[in-house]
Order: sequence, then C-alpha cells, then structure tokens
Amino acid sequence: MGIFVFAISGALLAVRKNFDVFGLAVLALVTGLGGGLFRDLVIDAVPPAAFTELGYLLTPLVATGIVFFLHPQVERINKAIQVFDAAGLGLFCVTGTLKAYDYGLGLTSCAVLGLATAVGGGVLRDVLAGEVPSLLRWDREVYAVPALVGASCVALLLRFDALNEFSMTVAAGLAFLLRILALRYGWRAPRAWHRRSGAAEEP
Amino acid sequence: MGIFVFAISGALLAVRKNFDVFGLAVLALVTGLGGGLFRDLVIDAVPPAAFTELGYLLTPLVATGIVFFLHPQVERINKAIQVFDAAGLGLFCVTGTLKAYDYGLGLTSCAVLGLATAVGGGVLRDVLAGEVPSLLRWDREVYAVPALVGASCVALLLRFDALNEFSMTVAAGLAFLLRILALRYGWRAPRAWHRRSGAAEEP
Amino acid sequence: MGIFVFAISGALLAVRKNFDVFGLAVLALVTGLGGGLFRDLVIDAVPPAAFTELGYLLTPLVATGIVFFLHPQVERINKAIQVFDAAGLGLFCVTGTLKAYDYGLGLTSCAVLGLATAVGGGVLRDVLAGEVPSLLRWDREVYAVPALVGASCVALLLRFDALNEFSMTVAAGLAFLLRILALRYGWRAPRAWHRRSGAAEEP
Repeated sequence: MGIFVFAISGALLAVRKNFDVFGLAVLALVTGLGGGLFRDLVIDAVPPAAFTELGYLLTPLVATGIVFFLHPQVERINKAIQVFDAAGLGLFCVTGTLKAYDYGLGLTSCAVLGLATAVGGGVLRDVLAGEVPSLLRWDREVYAVPALVGASCVALLLRFDALNEFSMTVAAGLAFLLRILALRYGWRAPRAWHRRSGAAEEP
Repeated sequence: MGIFVFAISGALLAVRKNFDVFGLAVLALVTGLGGGLFRDLVIDAVPPAAFTELGYLLTPLVATGIVFFLHPQVERINKAIQVFDAAGLGLFCVTGTLKAYDYGLGLTSCAVLGLATAVGGGVLRDVLAGEVPSLLRWDREVYAVPALVGASCVALLLRFDALNEFSMTVAAGLAFLLRILALRYGWRAPRAWHRRSGAAEEP
Repeated sequence: MGIFVFAISGALLAVRKNFDVFGLAVLALVTGLGGGLFRDLVIDAVPPAAFTELGYLLTPLVATGIVFFLHPQVERINKAIQVFDAAGLGLFCVTGTLKAYDYGLGLTSCAVLGLATAVGGGVLRDVLAGEVPSLLRWDREVYAVPALVGASCVALLLRFDALNEFSMTVAAGLAFLLRILALRYGWRAPRAWHRRSGAAEEP
C-alpha cells in the first residue's frame, strides 16, 4: 500500500510535467520502488525484492493506469493522497529499518537506512523529473523528520528488545501523525542562521 | 558496438552542452555503461562487467576521442547515429534480459531489467547533463516501447524454451525495426487524457 | 578528514541553494559518502563502510552543524576549504584505488574506481541540488585530472610492486598539488575543436 500511494504521487508529478504514459509508468515505478531498491543494494539483499516479487512491479503500473485515466479526479483528492503518502512514509520507515536490522547492520545505520527507504523514492522521482528534491527545499513542510523519528523509534525498540506488533504500529503511527501535523500547521525546518536573519531584515 | 553508439550519443550531448573533454568522457562512459552497470548491481553480478573487461572501459573513450576531434562530421551523420543507436537498443534489451535470466530472476523481472539495461544509460546521461530524460518526455519519439517489446519477446522465448540464435536475432531486429519506424513516422506515446483533450480544446 | 571537507562543501552548496537544515545534512552526507558508497556497491563490499562505521555517518553531521551555525565564517574561509577539498581529493583517489585492488579488480578498473570515489560525491551533490555537475563544466578548473593522475600513480605502483607508505603519500600529494595549481592558475580542459574555434571567430 505504501508503494501504491508513492507510485500515485510519482505518476501525478509526471502528469504535471506533461510526460507521456511511459513517463508516468517510469516515475511511478521509481517513486514506489526506488527507496527499497537503494536499501536492498546497500544491504546486499539481491536480487532486490522489487524484482523478485511480481506484486511489487505490478502495483506502480496499476497506479499508472489509474492516474492515466482518472487524473483530474485524482488531483482533486490530493488531500487524501497526502494522507496516504504520510501512511506510506510511516510504513516504509519502519519496514526499512527492520529489514536493515535483519541483515545485521548497527542500529544507527538501520535508522538511516529506514529513513533512506522512506524518502529515497521521492528524491529519485524529483531528480528524474528535473526538479530540486522537495525533501531539500525550505519552502516545503518537513518530510524527513517524521520518517527519522519513526525509524529511530524502531531502532530504540530493537535496542531494548521491546519490538512487537503493537510497538511497531505505534512507531509507524507516530511518523504518520507527525507528517500530518506538519502538513496541517505548515511546519518547516529552519534554514541556516544568516539566511533567516537576512530575510527578516529585508523589509 | 551497442556501447560504442550509446557512448557517441553521450559525447555529442556533452558537446551540445558545451562541456570540456572530461565532460565528454564522463557522459560517454555513463551512457555506454550505465544501463549494464545498473543491471549488474541489481542481479549482484559484481564486480560488474563494465569494470572487469577492459574493452568495456576503452570503447567509450574511443568514442570520446572521435567526437572530440570530428564532432561536426559526427553531428552531420546524426541520422546514421540514430540508426546505430536503434541497433544498440535492440542488442542491449536482448542481452540484458538474457543476463538477468542467467542469474535466476523471474521472467517479468528479466524483461524489466532488459528494458532498464537498454534505456538506463540514456536516462543517466540526461540527468547528469541537467536535462529532463528524453525517455520521459512527450515530445520525443517512443523509445521505451521498442526495448520493451524486444525484452518481452526474449522473456516469452525463454518461457517456451524456444530461444536460439535465430529467434534472438528476430527479437533484437523487431526492437530495432520498431524504433526506426517510430523515428520515421514520429510515433509518440499518449499523454494522460485530460492534457490531451485540453490541448485539443485550446484553439 | 576527506569526508569532512567534502561534507562541508555539500552543506555550503545547500546554504547557497537556500535549503533547510535537512537539506544541508542530506547534501553533506551525499557529498562526503557518495563516492565511497558507489565504489563499495560496485566491488560488492557490502554493507558499505559508510553504514558500518559510525564515524562515517557522524562526520558529515558535524560538518552540517558547523555550517549551519557558522556559515558566514565558513564562506569567508572558502580558500581554505578549497585547499582541504584538494587534500580530500588526493586521499580519496588513493584509498579508493587501493580498496578496489583489495577486492581483486584489474589495475585499470582500480584507477577508474579511485577516480569515481574521489569525484562521485561531488557529482551526486550537484545532481541533487539541481545543478549541472561542476565536474563536467567547461568553465571550472580541472578536477578530474588530478584525481586521475593520483589514481593512475597508485595503479602503476601496484603494478610494479612499489607501493609503500612513502610512495602512496607521494601519489596523494601529487593529486593535491595538481589541483592546487589548477585552482591557482585557472587551468581548464579543452572543449571540442569546433566550439573552441567558433568562440575564437566570434569577435
């Protein structure tokens, strides 16, 4: 499901950039599977799950089809997509961290890889579409923080041997909630000192 | 030979972007070897062939040298290059699919990797040169379809155990022919519904 | 130390592009660790050192903190950073070549990977920031040549079994010196013939 909503966001960006149907499919695949693919390459889980499980390949293509035929409706439910995307973010940062742990990485590395799994697809999507990744931009609501909090929670739970289905759900829910709150209240991360004071002095 | 013509196209783009001779070499290497490198990383064929066989490294450098000294002539034979590039596309989608199969991936994944091998170098070239990948753009002739058809043919042949030198050549030839026809008749892939009707309503 | 100065350059670019604090951290991590990560994936040294040694992850974060709070001062000492960056270039091209050799690659491939280790982080930084990689651009001082010379020296030393701490330091120092001289005297690489003569004819 995380893959599906990420793929939808990729296909929508492709529509906005006026790409053709293959552009839609490529951006949907990259956004949905990119983060996991990067993680699998790093932890040497090859061939990556994206290529061994057929469902992983088909989900973005279904998302492409939906956006291709219905995209005015899909754009209209943009709000709903942001909610799904936040849910995907929560799920991915938890599963990414766990999978890295299964392959024997240290806890800090696991949290970083969980973060990379959650945000990697979106970064690849933006780079391919010729845009500055929204992850990096100041004028976007924070995206990395919720994923980082979720991934760190899982790492801490692993550390204290307190990981079970319930605590995992709480970690994913926390990341989800933070992202929703960031969207709702327009939370942004600070820029470097100088720029901020410069902007304040401008008027 | 596929590597060579792909490398030529990379070096030519570098000339158009006014890069220096190292920019030429880097883009030539990336375009010629990028698709295969990605495939090898995914199927864990490491170290990748691009780094173990010297010829793979030297071919793009020869292409760089030719473009560096002769590029007005090379640009003039742009048509010929498009033909070679189509031939490279046909060869790469077949060999990429076969190599993925040798490493035990499922048939659908093989076809996808064959496609990625054929188009990956060009996408990397465009991203490095700061352009939107022509693969994704609506205003370019279809590039992914011929490769996808070729790769799918090989996957089907593998499925029905009918792969031999003759049928392989047919698959590569089919991809080559489709690309040539797409160039000749300006075939383009459709964009999402809304955009198309919007464009139709404009006048 | 190479990682540190590379991370500083990544974070400074993020400040210039007006990214937020996470953009700084991401660009610092990518610039500092990207080259080594690419090399480790290619030679199958997984999980990559970037994820197994905690210091590798922390160094770019320290660099981020420094730039975040002190960046006007950091910009002012831009000259000093270029010197450090040149030192990092020298170190990375030597260590990259050696690590590739340890994993059994041929000498030419080792030199290419050493070069990729040294320049890869910077290329990733520029691509993520939405800029044409300065490595490729004609109007920048040569960056690839010093790294290539350093990496080739190490490969030659390995070939003639003459590698020891002293000769390694000489190779790194040579790369460092070439880069410093290139900066000092504005050495640039030639563009393709036609462009150059075209520019000469313009007036």
